[in-house]
Amino acid sequence: MESADTCSLSIINERNETMLAIESLSVGQYGFIGNAFSFGLAVMASTTLFLWLMKSQVAPAYQMAITISGLVTAIAAYHYLQIMLSWDNAATVNTGQVLVTGEGFNRAYRYVDWLLTVPLLLIELILVMKLSNSETLSRSVKLGGAAALMIVLGYPGEVAESAGTRAIFWVLSMIPFLYIVRELVVGLKESISKQPDAVKGLIKGAAYLVIASWAFYPVVYLLPLLGISGGAAIVAVETGYTIADIVAKAVFGLLIFTIAMRKSVADAEEAAKQPKAAKQTI
Amino acid sequence: MESADTCSLSIINERNETMLAIESLSVGQYGFIGNAFSFGLAVMASTTLFLWLMKSQVAPAYQMAITISGLVTAIAAYHYLQIMLSWDNAATVNTGQVLVTGEGFNRAYRYVDWLLTVPLLLIELILVMKLSNSETLSRSVKLGGAAALMIVLGYPGEVAESAGTRAIFWVLSMIPFLYIVRELVVGLKESISKQPDAVKGLIKGAAYLVIASWAFYPVVYLLPLLGISGGAAIVAVETGYTIADIVAKAVFGLLIFTIAMRKSVADAEEAAKQPKAAKQTI
Repeated sequence: MESADTCSLSIINERNETMLAIESLSVGQYGFIGNAFSFGLAVMASTTLFLWLMKSQVAPAYQMAITISGLVTAIAAYHYLQIMLSWDNAATVNTGQVLVTGEGFNRAYRYVDWLLTVPLLLIELILVMKLSNSETLSRSVKLGGAAALMIVLGYPGEVAESAGTRAIFWVLSMIPFLYIVRELVVGLKESISKQPDAVKGLIKGAAYLVIASWAFYPVVYLLPLLGISGGAAIVAVETGYTIADIVAKAVFGLLIFTIAMRKSVADAEEAAKQPKAAKQTI
Repeated sequence: MESADTCSLSIINERNETMLAIESLSVGQYGFIGNAFSFGLAVMASTTLFLWLMKSQVAPAYQMAITISGLVTAIAAYHYLQIMLSWDNAATVNTGQVLVTGEGFNRAYRYVDWLLTVPLLLIELILVMKLSNSETLSRSVKLGGAAALMIVLGYPGEVAESAGTRAIFWVLSMIPFLYIVRELVVGLKESISKQPDAVKGLIKGAAYLVIASWAFYPVVYLLPLLGISGGAAIVAVETGYTIADIVAKAVFGLLIFTIAMRKSVADAEEAAKQPKAAKQTI
């Protein structure tokens, strides 16, 4: 598209801009983002411990959903540790100034995380619904596959230098996203209607929480196209992603746990009505 | 508000004061504070392990309270590790002198910790009381929300440069604090009166322990306004916060554990009086 010289120059410019961007942060802003990453790590790790320590309190049928919910936050905790360390290494603070080290801040950790966690989040929701074996498998493959495709299509645009490439991959990535939204709202409707009354609202709430928290990411993805930059923009993007991750993974995981607890009680009550069958299902 | 020049000058002054403050510590004082942070880490981590290892000894109804008690001290252990490392990086000791490195000591870790742990501490207390589902939810939301608001309102004052801003946020932060005090003393009165006799005094004690240990923080917050500074003041503030954290989290967590143990026994005795019902409720 361009000559090699222009291209390498534009890479250098790009890199300098990124470095300049971190350098344009005040000490307070640089520290605030680091604290947000540490907060993300603490939330993800403590949610993991809570879910795994409380797993034995739900009926065996729901323990896989809780195990995977904890796995999602565990994977996120690992990546927030990596993001935090990469942020620390990207700059040093000295006598009131943020100085970039030249190592760069590795934004790709977020994509590595999402590639693993985003399909698992949808599988959590399907597992806690306790559908038939065949429906569980087909919905997991369809929704999990679409989620993985969404992340894979987003990545080339994230690392692209041209605004055009970024815009194209944004559109491509939105196709599986809209398919997931449709599946959650329309596709799951009938299955949700068969859930016990005690959890019907919560499961619908969990599906909408996925849609609402995931809708944040394509908006942030577009910010560079809108020419929004500078210290305040970096603070907004990085803390925004962190809050969205906390809602989509930790809050969502605790909601799945609440649903599993209520369904365990509802199943036990149901079983108690049929005394003979009860002992076999528990 | 001020011209850019005056502003940056005041930032530099502020920063120099902070650095000077650490530099004004004797080697003994600098080491003492580092040891206090290490002590805090050891206490929090060992309390976590004790609570989680003993969790199976309390009745299932109280295991969530014990899990969360351990979670609070686990989160605190992580932040004491971060505080200790930040303290180590903020200065070096050489030939009998404390020399600041320029990286600064990250005081914000305490706020990140409190934002997570302070709401959870109140939820521990509510969970161990085993109230009705609706009362547990409404009290957790009210008390937990007020606690989070208290921390969020304290932070801008902590990082502010002007004494006026610090004073304003102290007052704002005291409003949710006083609401929590009122809720613990008046709001919980009726619920406490319905608790088994074996734990009535302990639960009242736990509520007062929260109030007494939390009252230490707004006092320390005001110290810079009173012009108290220098090496001895830093030692007082940092070891004071550490002791307050240990009382509010570790001692409080062990008190919650004692209450849970006694209530497990009381519930079993109660159930034994009604032999038929007993087997179903456990």
